[in-house]
Amino acid sequence: MTEAGRIALLTRVLSAGSRGGRGVEVGIGDDAAVLSLASLGSRGGRRLVWTVDEQVEGTHFRRDLAGWRDVGWRSFMAAASDVAAMGAEPWCALSALVVPDDVDDAALEQIALGQRAAADAVGAPVVGGNLARGPVLSIATTLLGTCDRAVLRAGALPGDGLWMAGRVGLAAAGLLALGAGKGDAPSLHAAVDAWRRPRALVPAGRAMASVAHAAVDVSDGLACDVGHMADASGVCAVLDESVLLADADLAGAAAALGASALDLALHGGEDYALVVASPVPAPGFRRLGEIAAGRGVMLRGSSGQRPIEPRGFDHFTSGRPRGASGS
Amino acid sequence: MTEAGRIALLTRVLSAGSRGGRGVEVGIGDDAAVLSLASLGSRGGRRLVWTVDEQVEGTHFRRDLAGWRDVGWRSFMAAASDVAAMGAEPWCALSALVVPDDVDDAALEQIALGQRAAADAVGAPVVGGNLARGPVLSIATTLLGTCDRAVLRAGALPGDGLWMAGRVGLAAAGLLALGAGKGDAPSLHAAVDAWRRPRALVPAGRAMASVAHAAVDVSDGLACDVGHMADASGVCAVLDESVLLADADLAGAAAALGASALDLALHGGEDYALVVASPVPAPGFRRLGEIAAGRGVMLRGSSGQRPIEPRGFDHFTSGRPRGASGS
Repeated sequence: MTEAGRIALLTRVLSAGSRGGRGVEVGIGDDAAVLSLASLGSRGGRRLVWTVDEQVEGTHFRRDLAGWRDVGWRSFMAAASDVAAMGAEPWCALSALVVPDDVDDAALEQIALGQRAAADAVGAPVVGGNLARGPVLSIATTLLGTCDRAVLRAGALPGDGLWMAGRVGLAAAGLLALGAGKGDAPSLHAAVDAWRRPRALVPAGRAMASVAHAAVDVSDGLACDVGHMADASGVCAVLDESVLLADADLAGAAAALGASALDLALHGGEDYALVVASPVPAPGFRRLGEIAAGRGVMLRGSSGQRPIEPRGFDHFTSGRPRGASGS
Repeated sequence: MTEAGRIALLTRVLSAGSRGGRGVEVGIGDDAAVLSLASLGSRGGRRLVWTVDEQVEGTHFRRDLAGWRDVGWRSFMAAASDVAAMGAEPWCALSALVVPDDVDDAALEQIALGQRAAADAVGAPVVGGNLARGPVLSIATTLLGTCDRAVLRAGALPGDGLWMAGRVGLAAAGLLALGAGKGDAPSLHAAVDAWRRPRALVPAGRAMASVAHAAVDVSDGLACDVGHMADASGVCAVLDESVLLADADLAGAAAALGASALDLALHGGEDYALVVASPVPAPGFRRLGEIAAGRGVMLRGSSGQRPIEPRGFDHFTSGRPRGASGS
């Protein structure tokens, strides 16, 4: 079964239990769960958003391609990005580490320092966690955020503009560069940095929260993640090729790697850009395309418009060390 | 470095970031973090407690000793027990699964059904999660609970009674029985059931919340976990041997296994009993001993009183498949 099939299986079994749960406004299936504080007797419309993300050595990172501090940083930011994608403000976090015997105390300290730096950067301190022994290093990070209104995957309307904050494709180029032993090339510096030190776009997420109809973060790849938004909203997302090709760092990295910049931009993950559907521009976002009637994802270039298969990374049918899919 | 040393390292690096964090009443170091909702503008003294626990195949369970449904159930209950130990009511949960290729879809469904059954049993639906591919099966469960007053490890006072809800030693006996291929013996049925289907003692936790000075759940072993309470409170915990030996199922299981019932009761983990220090009896708890001035854990028997080394299971110096330590 594909990863999507497995997520559907888990959703079917687990989410039946959450229907009608006290204060559960959004359960399995979005970037994060949304819980109403009114259900706890609070006044006003304050909400919690809550996500968990897990990074596993060999699947999401390789220790020869990232420093230990990068490993900690990246794992934290992957979770924080889910909170940003809901338009929420990160509040605090828990970290669950599984540590094998060949990760020594100095390495563990570097991982924790990377987590701490990321936590400081997004303003969400680590307030607890779990430490377990196991044969493979993994880091599960769970974050709580707060907001007055959570922006979901569903809600995009035909006529909305499609807007993006951050960049796409660079992190995948950085991973390719590291895998090819080209991490030190000046033309690949921005790409390597994008992969090693991604940033959850928290201020951009807060800025779009009051206007956006729908939002996603780009963790698995633009076509894949915008495809989730289109599917959940029952619309078609149209992307402008010219916008995707306007990133000079991406063009330079693609040239140095002999890779397609467009392919990297459409299918590369882990940049944690935010993409929103909104009738008006969101501060800090640039126009990426628009929402139309229909289904799926279309790419509009100089020679017309063509459908883009949202082939994101799938852990269960592929072995590329990229991306995590959640629910 | 021991697991305790590693937890201290993580605490040092990570908790400096949480001091002064908005609404963070208890950070790293207790069974769960405690967050004030007043910090979000809520009236009244409502609090969130928040924990994460992770179970890893080969460390916390073996697939030949537990059914897949048991694996899901146990992992959920281990997290729920932390919420119960704070005197809180479980609210909802997220589940992060790492699934290797040799766990097929039927197995995954059974794991999810076990999680779902446990979630139903404690009233905390799974509202989201994460699915990742990796070489080793692991299940990280994070739970939110709510309470008006969280009961911590610290706070026990000399003169308090020491009270216990639930049982100790049986789960460890059950694991021994399964490892020895004796899981089907009638005299070991209660023990095997205790290991396969532990229950977080949520009603007992709620009942003690208004009277207890301090509380822990017994995940790593009675001596170890009560030792945490004694250390955090700066007191000595005195356990009555006669109470520990009064469990007929434990005595029968120990006899069938050629093991020491006292050793199982003092050092066996994963029963998820609750132990509280309280000046008055807590409903549903029986007396286990008392809190005295001093330090550490003492066992009081017919021939007097002796100190008990709180040797819980330590992942980083031992290989026994038992227990998880958290912070």
